[in-house]
Amino acid sequence: MLIDGQPADRIPVSDRGLQYGDGLFETIAVTDGEPRLWEAHMERLTQGEVRLGFPLQDKSLLLAEARELISDTKRGVLKLLLTRGSGGRGYRAPHDATPRRILTLHPWPDYPDAWFTAGIRLRVCETRIGRSRVLAGLKHLNRLEQVLARNEWDDPEIAEGLMLDENDLVVEGTQSNLFMLSEGCLSTPDLTDCGVAGVMRRLVLELANQLGIETVTKKLTLQEFKTGDALFITNSIMGICPVSELEERRFSVESIPERLVLSVQKQAFGKV
Amino acid sequence: MLIDGQPADRIPVSDRGLQYGDGLFETIAVTDGEPRLWEAHMERLTQGEVRLGFPLQDKSLLLAEARELISDTKRGVLKLLLTRGSGGRGYRAPHDATPRRILTLHPWPDYPDAWFTAGIRLRVCETRIGRSRVLAGLKHLNRLEQVLARNEWDDPEIAEGLMLDENDLVVEGTQSNLFMLSEGCLSTPDLTDCGVAGVMRRLVLELANQLGIETVTKKLTLQEFKTGDALFITNSIMGICPVSELEERRFSVESIPERLVLSVQKQAFGKV
Repeated sequence: MLIDGQPADRIPVSDRGLQYGDGLFETIAVTDGEPRLWEAHMERLTQGEVRLGFPLQDKSLLLAEARELISDTKRGVLKLLLTRGSGGRGYRAPHDATPRRILTLHPWPDYPDAWFTAGIRLRVCETRIGRSRVLAGLKHLNRLEQVLARNEWDDPEIAEGLMLDENDLVVEGTQSNLFMLSEGCLSTPDLTDCGVAGVMRRLVLELANQLGIETVTKKLTLQEFKTGDALFITNSIMGICPVSELEERRFSVESIPERLVLSVQKQAFGKV
Repeated sequence: MLIDGQPADRIPVSDRGLQYGDGLFETIAVTDGEPRLWEAHMERLTQGEVRLGFPLQDKSLLLAEARELISDTKRGVLKLLLTRGSGGRGYRAPHDATPRRILTLHPWPDYPDAWFTAGIRLRVCETRIGRSRVLAGLKHLNRLEQVLARNEWDDPEIAEGLMLDENDLVVEGTQSNLFMLSEGCLSTPDLTDCGVAGVMRRLVLELANQLGIETVTKKLTLQEFKTGDALFITNSIMGICPVSELEERRFSVESIPERLVLSVQKQAFGKV
């Protein structure tokens, strides 16, 4: 674990990340000592810095620190947490804020192989996502809605929960983005009003376009989403993971274009 | 500063308060070595514990720790922060979570006397509050919207910002609740969908009722709110603070019933 480049595992109570969730994070796949999709993660982090009014971090310093931490890691998960640092009077941020960089390394999650071959069960969460345009798209530290949604179920047979917003629109999974394939067209919920604009979501859209697969970003109700020929979820660690079951509907895993899955695996994890 | 009853000023990076804003807080006025409105603060904290699924803390232990910290304090602000503690896999909380209690003591803010005699200027923030019923009312650690709203202005002549929700309804100030007096009736925004149910807000409603002042909790648009004969803001440290100006409208400070202000001061701060 590195805090501002130094080995450490504690932060001051005054840190605004703790006090207000005033910060951002990135969850980055590591293979063979390298952070994957680094540029895309840094672009999203920069968007967050701009939107929250943080001074911009030197991304080459972040990369050097990341490499120091993960140099011996064959396969793992790097979590990069950036808070606004300490200080300020109440909610008001200090003008001269010095953000705090926290890098932690975690084991690769033991997702069952069957998730990727047979697909996962997806449930619909009762916890809604509040629509908050100013925070939409960002991977910020205000994640109580996701915590409450994930705590709704214990059944290990259910891999992920789908979250709706307060207007009954499909947004995302608790820790993933959602895609629907319908008559060859790939759709994913519009995230203008809420939700995390995942790095893997972006990669999937880009690669689908390159492969000539039509893509659409739009408002989707749960009923529309369930009419898909195939559904899948994405995040930076899973890549693409097919959905086999959502409420009363069953979905065919085979309808997901293999060339898209392989292309994503290659770009995201270096698998050939 | 006390963490779990011990003098300390750092928490583990693994704390879910930092990772996800998975926690609650209370900002408590201290006078003559005593926390004020302790029971009301503990009732709200308990509601938060129940809603977030925390094991309930022993409130007498919290009181003992608070008293230890503030025993020599003539006048100050006690911040009590309660996180879910460390652990869990991702957003999912551990079944055996051990919440972390963080008590910090801060100086009384130097609010100008004129705020209370002549009233404050209130502005309307651009940052909206997302409607999220599952979190509504709680004083939780997901406060990025308030941080962004408070960062909208620098002018020290403006004391507070009014926040609207995504449906254009008045919710609260960045760090206060809002009240409108109109033809002798005291109205405050309904907080079913979002906002913090302030301890001082509750006290003001209770005391107004005791004094025979009609009170209403309802949905309020900005236009309606501006039609008030008088406006004021409340929080646990300020008590009642009158508003003299909101956009093009000027408000009379004298219309706020003195018996209500005195009654609140006595209950909240022991002033007679």
